[in-house]
Amino acid sequence: MFLLTQIKFLVIAITLMGSSVTVYAQITNDITHDEAFKTLLAAKKNAEASEVVVNIAVVDAGANLKAFIRMDESYLGSIDVAIKKAKTARYFNMDTGELGELTQPGGIIYNIEHSNDGLITFPGGVPIKNKNGKIIGAIGVSGGTIEQDRAIAIAGAESIIE
Amino acid sequence: MFLLTQIKFLVIAITLMGSSVTVYAQITNDITHDEAFKTLLAAKKNAEASEVVVNIAVVDAGANLKAFIRMDESYLGSIDVAIKKAKTARYFNMDTGELGELTQPGGIIYNIEHSNDGLITFPGGVPIKNKNGKIIGAIGVSGGTIEQDRAIAIAGAESIIE
Amino acid sequence: MFLLTQIKFLVIAITLMGSSVTVYAQITNDITHDEAFKTLLAAKKNAEASEVVVNIAVVDAGANLKAFIRMDESYLGSIDVAIKKAKTARYFNMDTGELGELTQPGGIIYNIEHSNDGLITFPGGVPIKNKNGKIIGAIGVSGGTIEQDRAIAIAGAESIIE
Amino acid sequence: MFLLTQIKFLVIAITLMGSSVTVYAQITNDITHDEAFKTLLAAKKNAEASEVVVNIAVVDAGANLKAFIRMDESYLGSIDVAIKKAKTARYFNMDTGELGELTQPGGIIYNIEHSNDGLITFPGGVPIKNKNGKIIGAIGVSGGTIEQDRAIAIAGAESIIE
Repeated sequence: MFLLTQIKFLVIAITLMGSSVTVYAQITNDITHDEAFKTLLAAKKNAEASEVVVNIAVVDAGANLKAFIRMDESYLGSIDVAIKKAKTARYFNMDTGELGELTQPGGIIYNIEHSNDGLITFPGGVPIKNKNGKIIGAIGVSGGTIEQDRAIAIAGAESIIE
Repeated sequence: MFLLTQIKFLVIAITLMGSSVTVYAQITNDITHDEAFKTLLAAKKNAEASEVVVNIAVVDAGANLKAFIRMDESYLGSIDVAIKKAKTARYFNMDTGELGELTQPGGIIYNIEHSNDGLITFPGGVPIKNKNGKIIGAIGVSGGTIEQDRAIAIAGAESIIE
Repeated sequence: MFLLTQIKFLVIAITLMGSSVTVYAQITNDITHDEAFKTLLAAKKNAEASEVVVNIAVVDAGANLKAFIRMDESYLGSIDVAIKKAKTARYFNMDTGELGELTQPGGIIYNIEHSNDGLITFPGGVPIKNKNGKIIGAIGVSGGTIEQDRAIAIAGAESIIE
Repeated sequence: MFLLTQIKFLVIAITLMGSSVTVYAQITNDITHDEAFKTLLAAKKNAEASEVVVNIAVVDAGANLKAFIRMDESYLGSIDVAIKKAKTARYFNMDTGELGELTQPGGIIYNIEHSNDGLITFPGGVPIKNKNGKIIGAIGVSGGTIEQDRAIAIAGAESIIE
C-alpha cells in the first residue's frame, strides 16, 4: 500500500518536473562590494548635501548585509531601521513606502511587519538594479524625514547605473 | 454554565475512553508526508496554471513544518510569510483571512499577531481536513495577490479529499 | 576641515576601487526548485533504503529555505536541526562535520555555534554543487545517527550531478 | 593578586572622580565615520594583500555598528561572526582571542558566549584606540584563518594612529 503511494508519487513528481530540469537554470545577479561602496558613498554625499545625518545599509541579492555606514550623530535607533528597510525592499522587490500603503489597518497585507523578524514598511528602502534592470540588492536609509530618507536611498541606488 | 460544559465534556471524554484509549487520544489525525507532498504539488500546479510564483508551506496537526517549497523567483520575504500563514491557520483552525477580520484596530483580538513569534492574519493560510472532516494540518501560500494565495492554498488542501 | 577629510577620503576610496568597478561582476549560481525537489527525493529514497526516518532541508545559494520534508514519525526536534545543518553548510561552504572538528573546546573556532542564530556543527549538512563544481545551495538531514544523516545528505547532494 | 588589581582600580577611579566629574565621564572617545571608513579600508587593503576575502565590521564606543563591508565571495556565515567579534572586543575592551582563553571548559568565564545575544571569543576582534590610548570602538574580521582575521583587524585598528 505504502509502496503503491510511493510509486504514484514519483510518477506525479517526474511528470511535473518534466523536461524543465536542466533548461530552467536561474541566474541571480549579485551586487559587488565595489558597487555596494559606490552606492553607500553616493547616498552619503546626497545626505550631506541635504544636511541630514543618516544610517545607510546595503544588502545583496540574498538580502544579506553587504555594506553599512552610520554617520556621526545619527540616531542609534536608525541602525536597525536602515538594515530592515534594505532587507524589506529586497524581500519584496519594492519601495518600502509602497509596501506600507498595503499594510495599514484594513489593508490587504495588514501587519505583515510581524514576519521575517520584523519588517519596516515606510519610505527609505529601495531595490538596487543594474543597467539591465535586474535586481542586485537593496539600500535602506534612516535618520532624516521619510522624504529625505527615500531621496537619499534613490540617489544611492541610481549611482550604479550612472 | 461553565460547570455544565465541564460535565458534558467529561461525559464525552469518559465515553470515548470507555471503549478504547486510542479513540480519545486522536481527536485530530496527522497528515502523512505523502499527503503533505500531494498537497504541495497540487498547490504548485495551481500556481503554475495561474502563472504566479509562490512559497508553499505545509504544517502537521502539531503545527510543525512538514513540507515546503519555494518556487524560483518568488519573493524572499514570502518564505517566512508562507510558514507563518500555515502555522496561524492550524493554531486557530481557521482561514487566516477570517482571523484577520478580528485583528483590526477595535477588533476583538486586536494585534494577536504579536503572539506565537508572529502570526500572519491575511488570506493564504487554510486548514487541511481529511475525508472525515478532521483537521490534519494546514497549508500557507505567499507570493501572489491575497486572492491568488488563498485559491492556491485551497487547491492544495482540497487535493487530500479528492 | 571636514571638507578636507571628505575629499581625502574620496581620493582614497576612488584609488582603492580603481579600474575594477565593472570588471569584477560576480555570478552566483542558484539551485532551482526542480533541483531542490530532486535532491529531497533522492535523500528520502536513501533514508527509506536505510530504514530511518529523517527531516530533510534544502537551502539555496543565499542560505534561504528552498525545500523541506519531514518524514512520518521522525523527531520533532530534528526539524530545526535539519534546517540549521543546511544553513551552516552553506554559511561556511563545508561539511558540517568538518566544521565541528574545529569548534570543540580548545579548537580554533570554539563556540562559533553562538553566531547566526545558532549553528549545527556535527555531521548531516553538506553543500550542493552543480556539474561545474559551483556551490548552488546545501542540504541538511537530521533524525538518524550522524553517519546515516551524513550519508543521506550526500546521496541527496550527489543526485544533482548524476 | 585580584585584590591588588581592585585596589589599583579604585585608586584610579577615586583620582579621576576627585578633580572633576566630567573628566571621569569621558573615559572613552567615540570613533567618527571617517575614522571607521579609514579602518575598514585599511583592513580591506590588508586582506587583499593577503589574498583572503573577509567580512569587516567596525563598532563605535557604544558597541553599535558604525561601518561594515562584506568582500565578494566571503562566507555568508561570517557577516554575523564579524559583527559579533567587533561587539565582543568592545564589550570587554580586549582582543577576542584573549577572552577565548578564559571561556574554555573549566575557565573562569566558561560559556560567557551565551550572554549579549551571542559572543564570539576566538581571534579576529580588537579594540580601536586613538592616539591618546583611549578606546573609541572596535573592529571584527571573519573569513580567513584566525591568524589572518586577527592580523587584518589589527591593521585596520592601527590605521587610526598612523
